[in-house]
Amino acid sequence: MEKVNLAAKFAHFKDHWSPKIIGELNGQHVKLVKLQGEFVWHKHDEEDELFLVCKGTLKMELRDKTILIEENEFLIVPKGIEHRPVADEEVWVMLFEPATTLNTGDAESGFTKRELDRI
Amino acid sequence: MEKVNLAAKFAHFKDHWSPKIIGELNGQHVKLVKLQGEFVWHKHDEEDELFLVCKGTLKMELRDKTILIEENEFLIVPKGIEHRPVADEEVWVMLFEPATTLNTGDAESGFTKRELDRI
Repeated sequence: MEKVNLAAKFAHFKDHWSPKIIGELNGQHVKLVKLQGEFVWHKHDEEDELFLVCKGTLKMELRDKTILIEENEFLIVPKGIEHRPVADEEVWVMLFEPATTLNTGDAESGFTKRELDRI
Repeated sequence: MEKVNLAAKFAHFKDHWSPKIIGELNGQHVKLVKLQGEFVWHKHDEEDELFLVCKGTLKMELRDKTILIEENEFLIVPKGIEHRPVADEEVWVMLFEPATTLNTGDAESGFTKRELDRI
């Protein structure tokens, strides 16, 4: 059992849209991801997803509105809700979600990552 | 669907050892709690528990060692592992754990909180 330092883990990688697993509990994963640019519209049929912004401002586009998530704020996107994360400048995010969650949900694309690194 | 600002939520309460629910997803709760002093030794038979320190330094006593968790660090305490959180000075913590989790686990005491506020 060892503690996890978020800054140290974020320093481990530079690539965008590629979540890294940094913890696992109760069938859920804790992941870090760096975002820049526009992701794909997608939804997760079975998983709610929590986005906690650690650095920068994340623009979460929903079909009916856009929510700006700033540092030390989080948003829970319930299952079934279409969303598109957009980062005009680089954003660092911590994710909490079931271990079964695929990053692109129902929208398989070049962004899809099936094998995630543990860092 | 609304974003949650951690600082604003922490400003909502002052009491210690009384977790507040600030989010729910996939059967898990996101909670905030302020700690000061020594808690009781306990374990959770069924739930892993994540402690993310938002302010201060949390001393997590385990039977074989003590782990100091600083700001922006987290520790996952697996189910079945006895632990005792100690805060020499006030510590602010975000918890991520199953909705079924009782704060004192198997050690019912004056610290036990069965009904948690949602803030």
